[in-house]
Amino acid sequence: MIKIGVVDTTFARVDMARYAIEVIKEHMPNAVILRYTVPGIKDIPVAARNLIIEEGCSGVITLGWVGAKTVDKYSYLAMSIGLIMLQITTGKHIIDVTVHEDEADDPKKLVEIAIDRARKHALNLVNILKYGREALTRYAGKGLRQGVPSPGPIIP
Amino acid sequence: MIKIGVVDTTFARVDMARYAIEVIKEHMPNAVILRYTVPGIKDIPVAARNLIIEEGCSGVITLGWVGAKTVDKYSYLAMSIGLIMLQITTGKHIIDVTVHEDEADDPKKLVEIAIDRARKHALNLVNILKYGREALTRYAGKGLRQGVPSPGPIIP
Amino acid sequence: MIKIGVVDTTFARVDMARYAIEVIKEHMPNAVILRYTVPGIKDIPVAARNLIIEEGCSGVITLGWVGAKTVDKYSYLAMSIGLIMLQITTGKHIIDVTVHEDEADDPKKLVEIAIDRARKHALNLVNILKYGREALTRYAGKGLRQGVPSPGPIIP
Amino acid sequence: MIKIGVVDTTFARVDMARYAIEVIKEHMPNAVILRYTVPGIKDIPVAARNLIIEEGCSGVITLGWVGAKTVDKYSYLAMSIGLIMLQITTGKHIIDVTVHEDEADDPKKLVEIAIDRARKHALNLVNILKYGREALTRYAGKGLRQGVPSPGPIIP
Amino acid sequence: MIKIGVVDTTFARVDMARYAIEVIKEHMPNAVILRYTVPGIKDIPVAARNLIIEEGCSGVITLGWVGAKTVDKYSYLAMSIGLIMLQITTGKHIIDVTVHEDEADDPKKLVEIAIDRARKHALNLVNILKYGREALTRYAGKGLRQGVPSPGPIIP
Repeated sequence: MIKIGVVDTTFARVDMARYAIEVIKEHMPNAVILRYTVPGIKDIPVAARNLIIEEGCSGVITLGWVGAKTVDKYSYLAMSIGLIMLQITTGKHIIDVTVHEDEADDPKKLVEIAIDRARKHALNLVNILKYGREALTRYAGKGLRQGVPSPGPIIP
Repeated sequence: MIKIGVVDTTFARVDMARYAIEVIKEHMPNAVILRYTVPGIKDIPVAARNLIIEEGCSGVITLGWVGAKTVDKYSYLAMSIGLIMLQITTGKHIIDVTVHEDEADDPKKLVEIAIDRARKHALNLVNILKYGREALTRYAGKGLRQGVPSPGPIIP
Repeated sequence: MIKIGVVDTTFARVDMARYAIEVIKEHMPNAVILRYTVPGIKDIPVAARNLIIEEGCSGVITLGWVGAKTVDKYSYLAMSIGLIMLQITTGKHIIDVTVHEDEADDPKKLVEIAIDRARKHALNLVNILKYGREALTRYAGKGLRQGVPSPGPIIP
Repeated sequence: MIKIGVVDTTFARVDMARYAIEVIKEHMPNAVILRYTVPGIKDIPVAARNLIIEEGCSGVITLGWVGAKTVDKYSYLAMSIGLIMLQITTGKHIIDVTVHEDEADDPKKLVEIAIDRARKHALNLVNILKYGREALTRYAGKGLRQGVPSPGPIIP
Repeated sequence: MIKIGVVDTTFARVDMARYAIEVIKEHMPNAVILRYTVPGIKDIPVAARNLIIEEGCSGVITLGWVGAKTVDKYSYLAMSIGLIMLQITTGKHIIDVTVHEDEADDPKKLVEIAIDRARKHALNLVNILKYGREALTRYAGKGLRQGVPSPGPIIP
């Protein structure tokens, strides 16, 4: 029985977990999904840690929302370092979905970014968990993006 | 018997611990609250560490105050990295309340931010400790803030 | 039997791994090359970790692509810290090839940078793995670059 | 027998250790003071580590001096992260006194800052070592500063 | 038999190791010097690690060269964090000589900086290794610099 963790925050302005969970359920119907909600992005690493270490999750998707100020970006940096340290300690993938408040002026646009990014990265996690290190190799260097249009590969 | 740690500083200009402790006592009257006061934010991680490792606290709330200069923000970043590393080492939540001196020009406004943020994050900590990883899930993606007005979720 | 890891991303806009693998195969025809593709640069450290710890790779080359925004640079910083921590934990070289979207306005130029950098750093990795700590000493202080023209040593 | 470490640098332009040691001797006449001098701030963490791990110091005060350039501030950040990681590994307080070259234009003012900061933080360290986690609690939220005037608490 | 490590890069535009080695040989004629050359500054920490852990070096001097761009400075920050973490793990001094491409417009000036800095820090390392934690104490607070003129102590 495979367990997959989903970490989200009350700070976020879109319920991204809903979309991530939909994708995971569709592609891994037998997986057990464990959700963990924390206040903000700096609380995400400990939640991911507990899902992996205490609950035995094989992989985690985290859904963060970052404010527009410089200190918010520093919080993002601290979270990113923490999640990377946790991954190299445990060997488990933690796919980090982050939406930045300043990615778009229009809130409706932010929703689109958030949903698309959550869906596509949930699929990335599923594929890595199901098919391993070469699951995404056919897309290597293809210039894929999540939440925004993919520029695609540069054709020399 | 559950122990909860409260870390604060002499640098801060508001006694935030008082408000955090009020909330914890109200919602967890049987909890033992251990307070640890340090000079400034860079001293907070070792205090949180000692409360968790030496004193057996199940969770910690830290109450930091950050100056307006670039180096103050770097100190904030270092503290944040330290608290995250400590959390992923111990598995214990350390809810980090931070007030930035440049969040408001009016000192009275800073007091309001500090008190509200301390109270709301104390409640966040209480809820996670009492009800676990889904305690806050009903608020996931709801755009909650502490100390400033909550923008709420984006309605697509 | 020596194993060499190659980590790349779907975010990158050039299939740099192809060029790195060509070079490795040419200079170490008996090496087993293990490829690991992840979504973006923040996923690179765990892939490198798994190639070293789980698969027994003696060295890894990582092929990252970094956006032009400030937060992309913070992601680059987090990845770099992670790769360095992993290297000082394992003692294995992880040669980090990174192309920054803002290194050139012309996409064709970016392709040239990417290919040259991947090739030259693949050769660096090969030489360190084959000949050890003094393999590159004859080039020490020679002002070598990858992907851009080498300024060469300063002649006093 | 309690041992206290004092780390300073040849980069600093004021012999801050002299003032820190005066304060420690005055308040803890039986303490053994071990001094460790290094070139610059990036060498401070290993000195603090050796004083704690090899020499058995119960606490350390570090006296750093930081240049005005951006890279100097990055060195400050790296040092701060290192000292915090060391503290959460050992549980020992390392009170970090830092003077920034750009805190004042007048060198005489820098001397005043350095001496006052070294003295006051030496006293902070003494109090924490002698009286524990609540030694400073009576000053919590009081807006205390070292080297510059204390703004004091905000009176709502 | 004492072993001393010297790490340098092919990226650097001056053969700083030559000058560092000269100084070490002059002051510690019986020391065994182990050299390790890597492509760039982000590869320095693993080389220093291998010299300490695998080869048994008692101390290391690293000779880095940093580009002028913001991302180069982030690489510098990542390297600095790595070297500090390695030092607090091993207890061995790693004296970090860094020349920044933007320290001078005139390449001849950069050579002067590089040579002087390498020499003076090699001597710092030698003195710490030979005479221990108080070797440099007579210069504490003396405002010493390497590669640029020393401002000296501030005379109050």
